[in-house]
Amino acid sequence: MARVYNFSSGPAMQPEWVLKRAKEEMLEYGTSGQSVMEMSHRSADFLAIIESCKNNLRELMDIPDDYEVLFVPGGASLQFSMIPMNLAKNKVQIINTGEWTKKAYIEHKKIVPTEIIASSEKDGFTYIPDVDETMIDPAADYLYICQNNTIYGSRYHQLPPDVIPLVADLSSMILSEPIDVRKYGLLFAGAQKNMGPAGICVVVIKKDLIKKNEELATMLSYYTYATNGSLFNTPPTYTLYICDLVFQWLKTEIGGLQNMKKINEEKAGLLYDFIDQSQLFSNYINKRDRSIMNVTFVTGNPELDKQFIAQAKEKALVNLGGHKTIGGMRASIYNAMPLAGVHALIEFMKEFEVKHG
Amino acid sequence: MARVYNFSSGPAMQPEWVLKRAKEEMLEYGTSGQSVMEMSHRSADFLAIIESCKNNLRELMDIPDDYEVLFVPGGASLQFSMIPMNLAKNKVQIINTGEWTKKAYIEHKKIVPTEIIASSEKDGFTYIPDVDETMIDPAADYLYICQNNTIYGSRYHQLPPDVIPLVADLSSMILSEPIDVRKYGLLFAGAQKNMGPAGICVVVIKKDLIKKNEELATMLSYYTYATNGSLFNTPPTYTLYICDLVFQWLKTEIGGLQNMKKINEEKAGLLYDFIDQSQLFSNYINKRDRSIMNVTFVTGNPELDKQFIAQAKEKALVNLGGHKTIGGMRASIYNAMPLAGVHALIEFMKEFEVKHG
Repeated sequence: MARVYNFSSGPAMQPEWVLKRAKEEMLEYGTSGQSVMEMSHRSADFLAIIESCKNNLRELMDIPDDYEVLFVPGGASLQFSMIPMNLAKNKVQIINTGEWTKKAYIEHKKIVPTEIIASSEKDGFTYIPDVDETMIDPAADYLYICQNNTIYGSRYHQLPPDVIPLVADLSSMILSEPIDVRKYGLLFAGAQKNMGPAGICVVVIKKDLIKKNEELATMLSYYTYATNGSLFNTPPTYTLYICDLVFQWLKTEIGGLQNMKKINEEKAGLLYDFIDQSQLFSNYINKRDRSIMNVTFVTGNPELDKQFIAQAKEKALVNLGGHKTIGGMRASIYNAMPLAGVHALIEFMKEFEVKHG
Repeated sequence: MARVYNFSSGPAMQPEWVLKRAKEEMLEYGTSGQSVMEMSHRSADFLAIIESCKNNLRELMDIPDDYEVLFVPGGASLQFSMIPMNLAKNKVQIINTGEWTKKAYIEHKKIVPTEIIASSEKDGFTYIPDVDETMIDPAADYLYICQNNTIYGSRYHQLPPDVIPLVADLSSMILSEPIDVRKYGLLFAGAQKNMGPAGICVVVIKKDLIKKNEELATMLSYYTYATNGSLFNTPPTYTLYICDLVFQWLKTEIGGLQNMKKINEEKAGLLYDFIDQSQLFSNYINKRDRSIMNVTFVTGNPELDKQFIAQAKEKALVNLGGHKTIGGMRASIYNAMPLAGVHALIEFMKEFEVKHG
């Protein structure tokens, strides 16, 4: 079987350029005589890889010098706890825009008083609620948001007012477009959508938010990662190597995040334009708040949705099912999804509509 | 450059059989049309991989049904905290046999009163201290040990008396020989020595020790991993796939842990026999307590040690330097190190001794 177009929400499609490099280098990386997964994390070869990984990410995201880049093992879910463990003293405010903010809220509450200041839950998370300055408590440690909601396919196109430090989950949109890192106190993202394999979480944090805390478990303290270059213990070495290949691909093959944004907007634009004129398919997210990475749609008939997903799979368009909590369809079109994949999807949607519309 | 013999203490050499399979399958796993690192963790293909991973480990280690196998992201160091978070209520006892029990002690003390009941620290960790039943407090939650001390090259050949649950760090000896899992309340091991790439920790725990704890962070609770098949959130999918390839190699190419033990004892025996008759090299660990996985040795002259390490590297025998805390040499000869690698090392040691003895 040839390679498929994989619309999975994560782990997700990776650039073929990356997979081919990884394949070539599997048994011997450069002149090391070793696979990267065999390398001591203290070896010169691996230190060069993690340094490249950090520097390429800094360059791509234009991360200012007063921000630290940390590589923390595990997924974004662990950060729902590590963030309040490290940053919260008084209280935290959160905007509820989907399952992932609900989960972050549950974990936060175990650690610090946490208040939901706005929510679109009663409307099925179909939009990003408006928040004005008066809703933000200057005494709160930070305001927590999920900037792109993978499940519903919504996102912030404008960030909330800047009153207290902003903490944002960028798991499903990091590196999809340029952002102004200075607007965040902390941003984080699990790797398995736009950065590489699952198993590592990138945390970009303003240095003055990193505090030594002797009571906290060493591996749960940002201070440990910051003061040891994320090498206090053995990091997920091979995972970081693949992430660096993805960063190299973004730099050399795509030409940086401004170009990536254009490509992503073109892909999402084609898909939304088709859906908006379709008599069969529709998207239920407030237009202003639509995601560029996760495009959700339904036929309105759950039985027909199932047929669509099954028939698409036969055409090598896989993982188009929506999240189990909401059903329907979802096309996750992360950085590595080529334009051709989106064209193929639209062609199939057209065919399906002719048959079933 | 050809592949080297890599004596790194971890991340460490992997079987070529595994790397070749991973290379072949990098862009297309089976008929999936995807790399394993691109697969949804909820897909049938990946669910089969994690199931195979768990079942192969169960079979290899002969894990009884009343024990759970958990895959927890991160390294063994996180377990120094997760174990007391999950298992400790009253107090913990620990036997101090090296840097890794010292680190476990530091993390434990943040969470629960912790007592060192025996230590070989004043003698440079050159042996495993004897412990008798009278030293173990039946009121303690568990007794903590590191069964193989990677840095010093020592190990328990006999476990401490069975009074309270035994919790053991097996990072650098898991799967090197058959063990009786029933002797442990919990055993754990970072993957990057005998199991695969860094980034995952295997926890084997007696089911009755797993308790629901609503106050604990979800991703730090064994209950979460146990009740969700280690799939509550996205696990390090590619890492688990490589671990399963290693388990398959152990089963089909080696023929199980009894055979693996014979090979490992042969490798270590050859090396210790050579060192014991050598006029130049010596091993400083109590003979009874010598590790089969990590063989430490010195010339007695730190300058000569450095020359040895550098010249060995030129002969494609790499990472023979001892841990930074003690210097000297260390040959980590984990499962994947072929007998030929040990022969090559001994040949070089002979040559070096003729020149410098």
